[in-house]
Amino acid sequence: METLEIQSLRFDTNGLIPAIVQDADTNQVLMMGYMNLQSLQLTLETKETYFWSRSRKELWHKGATSGNIQKVVEVRVDCDADTLLILVHPQGPACHTGEQGCFYRNMA
Amino acid sequence: METLEIQSLRFDTNGLIPAIVQDADTNQVLMMGYMNLQSLQLTLETKETYFWSRSRKELWHKGATSGNIQKVVEVRVDCDADTLLILVHPQGPACHTGEQGCFYRNMA
Repeated sequence: METLEIQSLRFDTNGLIPAIVQDADTNQVLMMGYMNLQSLQLTLETKETYFWSRSRKELWHKGATSGNIQKVVEVRVDCDADTLLILVHPQGPACHTGEQGCFYRNMA
Repeated sequence: METLEIQSLRFDTNGLIPAIVQDADTNQVLMMGYMNLQSLQLTLETKETYFWSRSRKELWHKGATSGNIQKVVEVRVDCDADTLLILVHPQGPACHTGEQGCFYRNMA
């Protein structure tokens, strides 16, 4: 598999890149968050997911409060280098509602 | 599963909502695109994926040129109602490179 350097990524005008989080074992799509450069660097270094909270405007270590951290298995990049896919081993539910993943509703 | 109406969705300031596309059978995450209201309505009505191309600034019927359309099985919504997860039966590769999915590279 071809490997990309962080410099090749295309962050948006707000300095963010969307990061889809998928369970590495079940392949369930758990959530989507946004990373800035710092949160991505922390994610790569610590092998736990960090995001940028757009609502709270602060760095967010997923699971720091709840204990439901996500152990990072691999960070994938798409063809445009503007979206990430993070494969994880979740240590608990990804969603703040207590659901395993955030996509528990559908559309009519 | 709880069902949401289109009026409940939170489109961003550009009128777009990110849509993760996942293979309904293999659970592979194939790509991520962006939908505006029109492309989402077309997706729900025709059961094939439509996106808004941010680079070309036009409605984009996935596979209209390549033949690689995506038959929609289900449209899921996340807890914040600002991200979609589209489960599909792809009729060919999702990526313009010919790869089955767009996330064929990883990070160092």
